[in-house]
Amino acid sequence: MIPAVTDWEARCRASFSRQTMMRTLGIEITELDPGHAVLAMSYSTQFTQQHGFLHAAATTAIADSACGYAAYTLAPAGHTVLTVEFKINLLAPARGERFTADAQVVRAGRSLSVCTATVTAHDGEDARAAAQMQATIMLFEGADE
Amino acid sequence: MIPAVTDWEARCRASFSRQTMMRTLGIEITELDPGHAVLAMSYSTQFTQQHGFLHAAATTAIADSACGYAAYTLAPAGHTVLTVEFKINLLAPARGERFTADAQVVRAGRSLSVCTATVTAHDGEDARAAAQMQATIMLFEGADE
Amino acid sequence: MIPAVTDWEARCRASFSRQTMMRTLGIEITELDPGHAVLAMSYSTQFTQQHGFLHAAATTAIADSACGYAAYTLAPAGHTVLTVEFKINLLAPARGERFTADAQVVRAGRSLSVCTATVTAHDGEDARAAAQMQATIMLFEGADE
Amino acid sequence: MIPAVTDWEARCRASFSRQTMMRTLGIEITELDPGHAVLAMSYSTQFTQQHGFLHAAATTAIADSACGYAAYTLAPAGHTVLTVEFKINLLAPARGERFTADAQVVRAGRSLSVCTATVTAHDGEDARAAAQMQATIMLFEGADE
Repeated sequence: MIPAVTDWEARCRASFSRQTMMRTLGIEITELDPGHAVLAMSYSTQFTQQHGFLHAAATTAIADSACGYAAYTLAPAGHTVLTVEFKINLLAPARGERFTADAQVVRAGRSLSVCTATVTAHDGEDARAAAQMQATIMLFEGADE
Repeated sequence: MIPAVTDWEARCRASFSRQTMMRTLGIEITELDPGHAVLAMSYSTQFTQQHGFLHAAATTAIADSACGYAAYTLAPAGHTVLTVEFKINLLAPARGERFTADAQVVRAGRSLSVCTATVTAHDGEDARAAAQMQATIMLFEGADE
Repeated sequence: MIPAVTDWEARCRASFSRQTMMRTLGIEITELDPGHAVLAMSYSTQFTQQHGFLHAAATTAIADSACGYAAYTLAPAGHTVLTVEFKINLLAPARGERFTADAQVVRAGRSLSVCTATVTAHDGEDARAAAQMQATIMLFEGADE
Repeated sequence: MIPAVTDWEARCRASFSRQTMMRTLGIEITELDPGHAVLAMSYSTQFTQQHGFLHAAATTAIADSACGYAAYTLAPAGHTVLTVEFKINLLAPARGERFTADAQVVRAGRSLSVCTATVTAHDGEDARAAAQMQATIMLFEGADE
């Protein structure tokens, strides 16, 4: 997949840094390639559900953001992205000390891109799929600020 | 819709109070009836996306939780609930000072329930649909603690 | 909801008549209002799953088409519609002699509309919800032929 | 992925042969492995939308069935499968003379399995992704007849 602009990576990181929700949840970008993004976050008791595991809201936040930035790597100049919709299956309790979301663009369109993402829960040496997402991202002209 | 236990409301509120994620996001229960739940949260700059509106992660969190508790009002004794999956359409930027998610059980099954929820953004006198969710919730035997 | 063109109904019916899939499945339009469409089909042994009930493929076809035409009633002049994606919950076996799909536009946008639809199975006097759909429909300039 | 019964393949093929909808659409099984199924169908003017391409209903039918049979390969003895719900993105017009759906079990659970499927449109030498699905399949005790 070929990015449309040379500064695709800087553009993604600048956008990411403006999302206070990412800071609040402690999510960071760990990999960024054209059409591909990996985000990571650590376990925190602030973001748990009733059994003490990571709340689906956090699992979803990291997956959705990974999809959005995977799509954003391929956006034309002067364009920004917006999540139209997504669907997520919670495959297993998100038990672990670290969580990653690996998102891939499945189809890069002019106005709509489709991405899939897998959230993995890392617990010591153990890594287990916690969620699977399929998302539709819209690309449109407009500054991302 | 007829609840299966007499203490359905207390059970829901006790479960809700154990989700630190709800406290972190400042989400509270404002209505609870058999098969129906309304949750609310206030705008905070901690939970925004790059344009300063409420992040989709928060919109999703309130909608998903409303669906889960709507389903939980109808769960048999000794049962708890778990979100299997959901799909959400983000209809408009979540612009406003207060957000509510109104969830309704569409089908109450023995092991699976289906719910829909609408998230509304309240901005002064203005109220606008911000998101629409359709979710599958699993009911299973087990303490919700 | 206000249609953008005066011939919205004729335009929908003309488009519908060009879909051979609708003829093959015996689906017909029974109601059409701005932002709203109801389609119906009869049971046939040609379209069954392994237990003799209506196949999910037929349930889905009628729901998806109802969503598409509900959105199409509101499309501007010279525009056509395309399903971007949908999600469907199959609530109960589609047991009956007649099936209807009732679709409603939840949000009518310039380029994307969101619809929900309920499929009902009619068995004598009995009517039962068989499926629930949430769909994203794209509107774009182009002849619908 | 390890099948739970030795006759998993015969069981799948017997179930498939009982779905008249599959015959009506001309869908056939072309590959079957534990946790994996590929189905195929040919273009026919009976199953088109208004532009003469394969109707989304057919694209969806082949994808949903591939997911169901992928999950069924792993079902315990005496169990059958039922689609709980699915979400499909239609990536491009389904233009071609032959269509395949390749489905993979992402998570095989005791009562719920999650599958993804890709539909490819084959047009001469050309092969192009036409749709992407994510589905939840329920496994339960009961004869599949």
